Amino acid sequence: MNTSIIRYILGHVLRIEALLLLLPCMIAVYFRESQGWYYLLTAALCLVLGMLMAWKKPKSSIFYLKEGCIATAMSWIFLSVFGCLPFCISGEIPSFTNALFETISGFTTTGASILEDVEALSHCALFWRSFTHWIGGMGVLVFLLAIIPMSGGSNINLMRAESPGPSVGKLVPKIGVTARILYGIYFGLTLLQLLLLYVNGMPLFDAVTTSIGTAGTGGFGIRGDSIAGYSDTLQWIVTVFMILFGINFNFYYFLLFRQFRKALGMQEVRAYLLIILASVTFITVNIRHIAGDLFHALTQAAFQVASIITTTGFATTDFNQWPEASKTILVMLMFVGACAGSTGGGIKVSRFLISIQSVLCELHSYIHPKAITTVKMDKKPIDREVVRATNVYFVTFLLIFAISVFAVSLEGHDQITNFTAVAATINNIGPGLSQVGPAANFNFFSHFSKYVLMFDMLAGRLEFFPLLILLHPTVWKDFATRKKKKTIT
Amino acid sequence: MNTSIIRYILGHVLRIEALLLLLPCMIAVYFRESQGWYYLLTAALCLVLGMLMAWKKPKSSIFYLKEGCIATAMSWIFLSVFGCLPFCISGEIPSFTNALFETISGFTTTGASILEDVEALSHCALFWRSFTHWIGGMGVLVFLLAIIPMSGGSNINLMRAESPGPSVGKLVPKIGVTARILYGIYFGLTLLQLLLLYVNGMPLFDAVTTSIGTAGTGGFGIRGDSIAGYSDTLQWIVTVFMILFGINFNFYYFLLFRQFRKALGMQEVRAYLLIILASVTFITVNIRHIAGDLFHALTQAAFQVASIITTTGFATTDFNQWPEASKTILVMLMFVGACAGSTGGGIKVSRFLISIQSVLCELHSYIHPKAITTVKMDKKPIDREVVRATNVYFVTFLLIFAISVFAVSLEGHDQITNFTAVAATINNIGPGLSQVGPAANFNFFSHFSKYVLMFDMLAGRLEFFPLLILLHPTVWKDFATRKKKKTIT
Repeated sequence: MNTSIIRYILGHVLRIEALLLLLPCMIAVYFRESQGWYYLLTAALCLVLGMLMAWKKPKSSIFYLKEGCIATAMSWIFLSVFGCLPFCISGEIPSFTNALFETISGFTTTGASILEDVEALSHCALFWRSFTHWIGGMGVLVFLLAIIPMSGGSNINLMRAESPGPSVGKLVPKIGVTARILYGIYFGLTLLQLLLLYVNGMPLFDAVTTSIGTAGTGGFGIRGDSIAGYSDTLQWIVTVFMILFGINFNFYYFLLFRQFRKALGMQEVRAYLLIILASVTFITVNIRHIAGDLFHALTQAAFQVASIITTTGFATTDFNQWPEASKTILVMLMFVGACAGSTGGGIKVSRFLISIQSVLCELHSYIHPKAITTVKMDKKPIDREVVRATNVYFVTFLLIFAISVFAVSLEGHDQITNFTAVAATINNIGPGLSQVGPAANFNFFSHFSKYVLMFDMLAGRLEFFPLLILLHPTVWKDFATRKKKKTIT
Repeated sequence: MNTSIIRYILGHVLRIEALLLLLPCMIAVYFRESQGWYYLLTAALCLVLGMLMAWKKPKSSIFYLKEGCIATAMSWIFLSVFGCLPFCISGEIPSFTNALFETISGFTTTGASILEDVEALSHCALFWRSFTHWIGGMGVLVFLLAIIPMSGGSNINLMRAESPGPSVGKLVPKIGVTARILYGIYFGLTLLQLLLLYVNGMPLFDAVTTSIGTAGTGGFGIRGDSIAGYSDTLQWIVTVFMILFGINFNFYYFLLFRQFRKALGMQEVRAYLLIILASVTFITVNIRHIAGDLFHALTQAAFQVASIITTTGFATTDFNQWPEASKTILVMLMFVGACAGSTGGGIKVSRFLISIQSVLCELHSYIHPKAITTVKMDKKPIDREVVRATNVYFVTFLLIFAISVFAVSLEGHDQITNFTAVAATINNIGPGLSQVGPAANFNFFSHFSKYVLMFDMLAGRLEFFPLLILLHPTVWKDFATRKKKKTIT
């Protein structure tokens, strides 16, 4: 295994984190908050460590899927561990476990919080919390690829390990350019939302944190009531942008380069919008008597559906109080998730399209045993390998889900809490139902359960395999033998 | 499509049902119950209809998997519709929907009841209810194959459509002999349990219904408190036999022919017993304070675990009152199910073994991209096609499960009720949690929900595809064109 390239990448990741930590420092300067020093201190630590780790260039820059997965999983763990330090040392979140939970929840764009009173935090802490969403949404390694020229074509493996969805394609032949285009679209859309929110009367700081939280489909709010306190117009702007950030970014790429037919032909995007439309319609009718009038029912339904399917996790109402059928739809949407290639989490619409088709193909093969049927997407046949990997993904999801629910159930909370806490973290959403509903938080869980849920957040964001490979014994043997070799030579 | 062979098979199935209905008639004679006449009437109806349908031998006896699936699905629907008539016309279960629910629940070995007071039923009705479990457990078409010589090797398709598990093998080259051996073992084990129960003090009628209910892993009790009223010894006998009937019948075949090494080497059976052992141990410790002492905790834990994993559904305690962790284990066992090739339902242990291995293979392929890995069972490699079909099964299960939970949630009951009602029917168990717990029944559901759950019971018992094929439009077109052809000629 090429461990030196992993070290080299991790060094770069830490240097990027040092850079990113300067932003909350600037916020602290603006608001004259003393907590800014802790961010500067952490930035310095990351810079020094990062410089040391990326000092020696690796002899060989070739790395395979295995190295890509390990580098990705370790990058995310490093990012989170160092990213939680300012919370810890500033005393704003004194417990390391809680600070780590909050930071992992941030980077994985989950938005599940352990904070009892979010409004007590300093501005720089609030900004850093929301900013982790923005970084985690598109992925830090995609960012790395965008700014650092890496030789060899094998760095698609980094992107493959970090980007969500069943199959990752390059938009343009060069991966660095692809990454830059993606970040360009991402930045542009975020800025557009910020402007719209600001123009419509949201305070600047709120507009910044809300738009970066929406862009990453994260969901940390900076107010105790999440988005409920803002005007209807602002709520609708957030609703629309949540839906936009849940769309496959290829769609925007096609629009940008005037390939309208390709953009409109994207089956996944159409299915995604159709699911939203159907769910909003049903829930609007179902909650009309609770919301008062039809317009408020529609506003609430649209916001919550958009928030859950894109796995953002903002809330404008306590949907724990909704009728059972509406709650059931929300729980299902938790699993559906957004489009592949978006910043959203969950299982992804395209995986469902592929799976439903593979079931239909199976049925067809019973009826016409000799006919050859293929799963198609956007009218193109999908590689059998992708169909197989999709089905294996489902099974992996189920197994990790079941084990997690059991582990959390040991604490003795009710089953809805356990089930939706795991669903909300593994799908990177944030709030669940019952004790982890939108009006509650995750602080009451034991340390053990918190670590289980942290694992689920990371596993869900990285789509299981990068993290599972990191836990695989042969990988640890590889590390061990390398160390031994070093001591011998 | 060879529709005449389907008609022919259905005719035979009805004739068998006529024969089986004579048993409750005999019970009625013994207990001098007037309800027996309704069973005789239904038997006569089945006989006449069956004779008419099986009058003309089909020109071609060749049938493929499609015909096998359709014949199986229709057989089960016919069996249930005619089987529920005595309940209806005798007025013991006046509503047709309720009678059909009870009968489908019987044949599919689910054991979910709509009866508020089971002890009010006549003996012949109680016997017929439990006897449907015994028929459904091994399968009526397997019975058909055992007694009627059918030409052509393609009738393995009938067995394949009806028998549970990822792959069905013949024990001996001739399918009729295989079917007879299976029924022989089944009958022998049932008789042994009956004797043991009777000798240990259970009244004869109770012993008969309990042992046929256990053998089919059904779960209809003839007392309001299910099995709780019997002595500890009797409870332990039922526990052991539930576990025995959840074992792959190949195991007994190997034992019978002294192939001990083969029997003990069966990976699925070992995993199954290991899961039971682990669950019983955990729950015993977890419920010790509720059960009073360790022995009673063990007795209750063993009984409930055996009842749920084998999908029988008998109960000796209201596990709704257990701690959350124990309840979570039970809910998980609901999905695990028994061994393939047993009378139990659920997803089956072997499917989990195959799936876990396919996940491990996927992990392995990330680490060693060029290595070829195969899923193995009992040290033999498993056909890729079986692995694929297993993964597709999981996805189908998930989709039908989700749709059913949503359909049932429209009624507005709590989510635990909806979730476990579907889980308990689709896995052919019987009781769930909350409002469908072991101390409750399914009568409060609306007609719509009852039909959804009936579909789930049949779909679960036949493992989805036979029933889905019956619903497929091309099959209906086939039926329609055939009718047209007939009218033309």
